[in-house]
Amino acid sequence: MDIQNLRWWGWGTLDQSFDLEGRTAFWPGLERMIEVPRDRESRPPVTLDEIELRPTRLDDRLLSSLRKLLGEDAVFTDRRTRVEHAYGKSYRDLIRLRAGYVPHPPDAVVYPTDETQVAALLAWAADSDVAVIPFGGGSSVLGGVEPQPSDRLCITLDLARLDGVLLVDPVSHTARVQAGATGPEVEAQLNAQGFTLGHFPQSFEFSTLGGWIVTRAAGQNSIGYGKIEHMTQAVRVVTPVGIVETKDTPATAAGPSILGLMLGSEGTYGVLTEATMRLHPLPEVQDYRGLLFRTLDDGLAAFRDLMQSGLHPAIVRLSDPSETAAYALMSHQHHGLRGLFDKVLERYLGLRGYGFDDSCLMILGFDGDPDEVEYRLNLALEICLDHRGLHLGRSIGRSWKRDRFAQPYLRDDLLDNGVLVDTLETATTWSNLVSVYEAMTATLKSAIAATGGGPGAVLTHVSHAYPYGASLYSTFLGRQTSPDPLENQEQWRTIKRETTEAILAAGGTLSHHHGVGRDHAPWLEDEIGPVAMQALRALKQTFDPGNTMNPGVLLTP
Amino acid sequence: MDIQNLRWWGWGTLDQSFDLEGRTAFWPGLERMIEVPRDRESRPPVTLDEIELRPTRLDDRLLSSLRKLLGEDAVFTDRRTRVEHAYGKSYRDLIRLRAGYVPHPPDAVVYPTDETQVAALLAWAADSDVAVIPFGGGSSVLGGVEPQPSDRLCITLDLARLDGVLLVDPVSHTARVQAGATGPEVEAQLNAQGFTLGHFPQSFEFSTLGGWIVTRAAGQNSIGYGKIEHMTQAVRVVTPVGIVETKDTPATAAGPSILGLMLGSEGTYGVLTEATMRLHPLPEVQDYRGLLFRTLDDGLAAFRDLMQSGLHPAIVRLSDPSETAAYALMSHQHHGLRGLFDKVLERYLGLRGYGFDDSCLMILGFDGDPDEVEYRLNLALEICLDHRGLHLGRSIGRSWKRDRFAQPYLRDDLLDNGVLVDTLETATTWSNLVSVYEAMTATLKSAIAATGGGPGAVLTHVSHAYPYGASLYSTFLGRQTSPDPLENQEQWRTIKRETTEAILAAGGTLSHHHGVGRDHAPWLEDEIGPVAMQALRALKQTFDPGNTMNPGVLLTP
Repeated sequence: MDIQNLRWWGWGTLDQSFDLEGRTAFWPGLERMIEVPRDRESRPPVTLDEIELRPTRLDDRLLSSLRKLLGEDAVFTDRRTRVEHAYGKSYRDLIRLRAGYVPHPPDAVVYPTDETQVAALLAWAADSDVAVIPFGGGSSVLGGVEPQPSDRLCITLDLARLDGVLLVDPVSHTARVQAGATGPEVEAQLNAQGFTLGHFPQSFEFSTLGGWIVTRAAGQNSIGYGKIEHMTQAVRVVTPVGIVETKDTPATAAGPSILGLMLGSEGTYGVLTEATMRLHPLPEVQDYRGLLFRTLDDGLAAFRDLMQSGLHPAIVRLSDPSETAAYALMSHQHHGLRGLFDKVLERYLGLRGYGFDDSCLMILGFDGDPDEVEYRLNLALEICLDHRGLHLGRSIGRSWKRDRFAQPYLRDDLLDNGVLVDTLETATTWSNLVSVYEAMTATLKSAIAATGGGPGAVLTHVSHAYPYGASLYSTFLGRQTSPDPLENQEQWRTIKRETTEAILAAGGTLSHHHGVGRDHAPWLEDEIGPVAMQALRALKQTFDPGNTMNPGVLLTP
Repeated sequence: MDIQNLRWWGWGTLDQSFDLEGRTAFWPGLERMIEVPRDRESRPPVTLDEIELRPTRLDDRLLSSLRKLLGEDAVFTDRRTRVEHAYGKSYRDLIRLRAGYVPHPPDAVVYPTDETQVAALLAWAADSDVAVIPFGGGSSVLGGVEPQPSDRLCITLDLARLDGVLLVDPVSHTARVQAGATGPEVEAQLNAQGFTLGHFPQSFEFSTLGGWIVTRAAGQNSIGYGKIEHMTQAVRVVTPVGIVETKDTPATAAGPSILGLMLGSEGTYGVLTEATMRLHPLPEVQDYRGLLFRTLDDGLAAFRDLMQSGLHPAIVRLSDPSETAAYALMSHQHHGLRGLFDKVLERYLGLRGYGFDDSCLMILGFDGDPDEVEYRLNLALEICLDHRGLHLGRSIGRSWKRDRFAQPYLRDDLLDNGVLVDTLETATTWSNLVSVYEAMTATLKSAIAATGGGPGAVLTHVSHAYPYGASLYSTFLGRQTSPDPLENQEQWRTIKRETTEAILAAGGTLSHHHGVGRDHAPWLEDEIGPVAMQALRALKQTFDPGNTMNPGVLLTP
């Protein structure tokens, strides 16, 4: 079987790849922007069979005890399953995998069916000195699900069989949901009862409730529905020393927050098996509009006013000039932003002072009851008008919604053509946002150039925001420096290190919603300080005295 | 000096006592309700000089080193200051104090002026094996600021001199505020720059920002402005092992929440010296209305719909039938609820099926821009109408606002007359709210009766709520059982124990906004479980290895 068909390759199977048909401006534009020619030597990935995979190091005794514990059909040691669980979804993960470089696969992948099995498995692992990596959708982009390079045995605990919505409480607007449920599984079960969780990260199709919670994820509607930590009312976590269950109550003053410790714990304290989530009634209407601002400053001023207005939009998403231009490149020739610009407005916009060079695209949307949505949307549009925003109507909102989960699929094409492509994100206060934006984008550009990546491109948007500040999310692209895929890791490492340090120096947080994993772990102490680091180490020692759970994540060894 | 003039007596000086003038129905009504005659033997408190106060146990060497560290004017060992800092403000505190029973006063009270002094003091205390109790307004009702009965020396660290708003960020709507600022100090400094924090607990006049944060407090407008944990963006805490500073960012995914650990830590990890708080522009209008519902079920259904409507009221407060009747008793004869009922509506209400027996009073208010407030208030009133709510207009809202901080002053009068009076609170989901309400109120009534407290009265309201659930807050009254004030502690203890256990058994949280202190500490493990308790002990050991900070609070020895 060809590795390109693996479920998690890119972000999905290749028949779900990003459809470039009709997006004729894309490659020529990209070639101009980052100076990576389309006809560059193609770099196809290896096939699954070409990977030199170490056999499982679990001996027959351990394997048979595992099978006895979980059942014959719950323990996998085959090539495909182990390769599928060896990495997450970062650029570095993809280049290693495409090169067939999988030196540390898990020794087995297990699929428990309930909490009792999870607890039994952790006891078995502690007894046998086997490391355990909890695995949801495997969409970590920070090395959160990757086995530690080590002589120690390691198994991956895939939660795919814990995928149910156990109970919807229609009075309290909450539901108990199992950790392994993917985005579509969560929404389908809730929608059937008239509710939505409202969590739509770009990884929605594959990522899971448990993964969202333990990494403090944010979805594309976080402005209206909150980050996952705002949606999580209570959790159950099986740790090696017993179960932690927080109380199902909307608020409490019973001491320091245990819930707040489990949110962001990234599988290092135990396995989150289920959570009580806060729901919203399915909105009757979703009205999403496009707006164009003359400058980033205008767009940010409007964004901030929207967030401080009390109007509670479901989504506000502002692209900087680079990302706005890239959207136009990526649009279908005959519809989308490009179609709109080309066919109707380009000249008009030019006359009025809008254009591709400095203008910023905003998506602004409201969810809810039709009358209320209309009332609030009109007030929000007035705010945008105050900042010279040009209302582009509904079509841009629709086309954004249609493509909202598609972009990661584009990575397959880009990697085939030797393009470096990754993302970075942070958050800070409104008053500090432009400083962090400038530090982040300038450092990315200079690090790409310095590593031989060419002029590069940095496309940034603000899509998670609060009355008090906002996140910044950058996609960066450049030329890979080496024909040897593995050597490109060094380029990535340099860019990542320099930009992370620039973000922290400017006052941005290490991560707004991707988490820590292995990749950010060296900087966690910079973020929280040495005393708090001691506290995290003490907590790890308490919940997981044998260092069984996801070793090397959050805390450097 | 008479002890009645101490600032913290009751909740203020006696010239700020609750004004019963014109409230002619109050005592006769109370006598009927709880069978405590007004002419019962009066029980005045002792005077300050009558208290047998142990001299400070700090020797000259320690005192002089303290004075060298903090300055001559920062160290107090006089009778008045030590008595003022010996207790919080619970019923049990007041009866002990009125009896002159102060066996464990702090050995000194110190007033550092900045964070450097706080850090130096903690180092001194750890070296000298002296316990330190951080003290804000001293309004804990759970034994949170009371020295542990122990041979160990103990000082109280009063934060009164750290009372400034250091910096307002008008762009990000945040401010850095020092921990010792009281409610009026916080609001005056913020209001001058056009902002409000929006935190108005009943203790507002005396309690402090730091106290609010470390106990996870909630103010009377928590529905619109959030609990203190929702308002707190970042904190600085001086622990015995160093400073913990969390990042000033509106959200983060950088691991488990250190901020969430400091919220609710009740001075047991260190001294919170300042916090970055989230602000709101001062509202242009505040429109608060009264409504009457036929039954508690109707009122709760309307309340829940309001919380799930997305209309974002600033305040919703629903009194159960007992508290509604008590409001009427407490009202001025010629205005307030009683005046309204007596003069205009009583007969009309009776005809329509509303009355004192089952009806429930709601205060419903919106803050903000006049047009928006009108729009949202009208939609909210429609929701109330759907549940047979009777709109009483603005006067009740105004009279509630006028008296909002006054009720605690009434305790002086009640205690003078041998009345047992205390409060309890919890929170749970909407679907479980009536169960917890019934368990809590029934247990209070039966425990009051069983301890010889007579029929008693339990007055309950819901005033902190979320789309997913709400808090319950009960004031309970009865007859004190003994003419010896101290012996009445046992009655209180029995009632507290039985009701706390009933609340936990019914699924309510140990506390929604009062905290843990010493009084709730024995039940914290019931709330969070044994594994989480181990985690809290490990954190205590990490931040405060010498057990210097507020020993006995949160964790039982």
